[in-house]
Amino acid sequence: MVTIRDVGKHAGVSVATVSRYLNDKGYVSEETKNVLKKSIQELGYKPNQMARSLSTKKTNIIGLLVPDITNPFFPELAKAVEETAFSNGYTVVLCNSSEQQEKEKHYIQSLQQNYAAGLIVTTNYTEAEYYRHIKLPIVALDRRLDPTIPTVTTNNVEGAKMATNYLLEQGCKHILCIRGPQGIGVAEDRMKGFLEVVNNAQDIQVETITSPFEFTEAEQKAFNILSAFPTIDGVFAASDASAIGAMKAAQSLGRKIPDDIQIVGFDGISLGALVTPELTTVAQDIYHLGKVATELLLKKIKEEPIDNHLIELPTELVIRRSTK
Amino acid sequence: MVTIRDVGKHAGVSVATVSRYLNDKGYVSEETKNVLKKSIQELGYKPNQMARSLSTKKTNIIGLLVPDITNPFFPELAKAVEETAFSNGYTVVLCNSSEQQEKEKHYIQSLQQNYAAGLIVTTNYTEAEYYRHIKLPIVALDRRLDPTIPTVTTNNVEGAKMATNYLLEQGCKHILCIRGPQGIGVAEDRMKGFLEVVNNAQDIQVETITSPFEFTEAEQKAFNILSAFPTIDGVFAASDASAIGAMKAAQSLGRKIPDDIQIVGFDGISLGALVTPELTTVAQDIYHLGKVATELLLKKIKEEPIDNHLIELPTELVIRRSTK
Repeated sequence: MVTIRDVGKHAGVSVATVSRYLNDKGYVSEETKNVLKKSIQELGYKPNQMARSLSTKKTNIIGLLVPDITNPFFPELAKAVEETAFSNGYTVVLCNSSEQQEKEKHYIQSLQQNYAAGLIVTTNYTEAEYYRHIKLPIVALDRRLDPTIPTVTTNNVEGAKMATNYLLEQGCKHILCIRGPQGIGVAEDRMKGFLEVVNNAQDIQVETITSPFEFTEAEQKAFNILSAFPTIDGVFAASDASAIGAMKAAQSLGRKIPDDIQIVGFDGISLGALVTPELTTVAQDIYHLGKVATELLLKKIKEEPIDNHLIELPTELVIRRSTK
Repeated sequence: MVTIRDVGKHAGVSVATVSRYLNDKGYVSEETKNVLKKSIQELGYKPNQMARSLSTKKTNIIGLLVPDITNPFFPELAKAVEETAFSNGYTVVLCNSSEQQEKEKHYIQSLQQNYAAGLIVTTNYTEAEYYRHIKLPIVALDRRLDPTIPTVTTNNVEGAKMATNYLLEQGCKHILCIRGPQGIGVAEDRMKGFLEVVNNAQDIQVETITSPFEFTEAEQKAFNILSAFPTIDGVFAASDASAIGAMKAAQSLGRKIPDDIQIVGFDGISLGALVTPELTTVAQDIYHLGKVATELLLKKIKEEPIDNHLIELPTELVIRRSTK
């Protein structure tokens, strides 16, 4: 294996000079730089990344912490983060916490001990104390952790208002809201938008249930409430996953979509276009969300100034066949 | 920060002894071990993982290389690998190559340079030369790389035979096979199983198209061939993703499923139960597949003997509503 010593010898300079060059620390003349570049190429020298990391206390690793990789929203996000990071010379470590706080803590510790360059977080434990003590550059994605932490999210209140207004325009009179888990920012914001609209509407009856952003539980809960209230003619679900669960429930009760009941989801996952009928949804630009968050993190890593600590991306109502 | 020196001082032993203890190398008496354990606890000493890795040339990181994280098969697999690894004290780095060979190469290099403990690979570039030179413990998952590399896969030939026989039993006479990409082992095996059955059947007409394991392209291609051959009454798709694409194509042509056309997929992703009608499929036990591969890799990492270099898990025909 070629060592830093071999490079020095080949280039006719000291090991210290090679080290200064490799670590981009201290003065090396342009001429020497060129000679070193050539020697490194000719010898096929590969710096020992780990030894370098130990001295610089930095790697090119970005951690991406997600709560549930089997929720299709997150793979789509991960792809965007990974591609943006990669084209900037960074490698993404995808950490799936499976909604376990212990695991999340472990991953954060491990990333810090391995000198990760930065961290993108989409945790569901936004209150967790340990986020206050992370010494890495960090960006919150689709979640709000702390006003000091740069955040990229969707304008969830506006998106929910858009969906609810659309159900009213389509003539729905008895609306079921399938909200997301208590305490999760995006779930609270979408609920807030929904309530703002229905509270100002006339002659509207409203039911609300809570479900995780997940198919199976949503289907079960929707089945129960749709059985109990046969007059429900509209559903606003705070995620596409729960909307698709509600769709299955309605169909198994023999309710025709959209004739008997209209359904609007939230997220814009690709799956929404694959179910029958295709799902009307408040689409986030998931790829853009991941890309913007990664670019923001790269700025933090490079200690460049950040103008805007809260970036809220707009949503778009994608009308398909689950509404009239 | 507490150092190895502080631990030695506190325990009344030399730094070399602490180092021998921490790296599990060389003799340390049981008594000293107990004293050291206590000192480490009392002082809250945390070993610098990276410095340790540099001396042991090993970390507790397992790389998982997947070709496309947005194909729902892979997040389900990743979850299994991650949970099995985690409960054994390992951390998983998920590397998504987005089907790019350059990226795959980069990830493998980076994992090696960072002293990953091992690698689980589900690449689509099974011929790639660089797999022959990897110096890490490696397990191939759902793909065959090399007879010397332990492999966990599904019995794809048998699964495909089961699906095709079922379509024949259901009375299909004109069958479309949507095969997977040329040169990918699982795609070839599923094709082989399909052909074995139809070549031995009487009065059966067969069409074949090739599609990646992905929705959109499968939908388009299925649309074209279903338009050209209105008598096609059965589809065997080599993945659930392409089966769901075919389903959408059939529906947009006004063909009733399963009355006019019956469809069977392959994989058993959760999504299959969410589409309408629910998809009949050759289900792999995806979680089990990931778990077994991880356990096999852990054996290799610990240099334990491996009895079986090719583990083929059985499949199960899950009959839902896309067949009669």
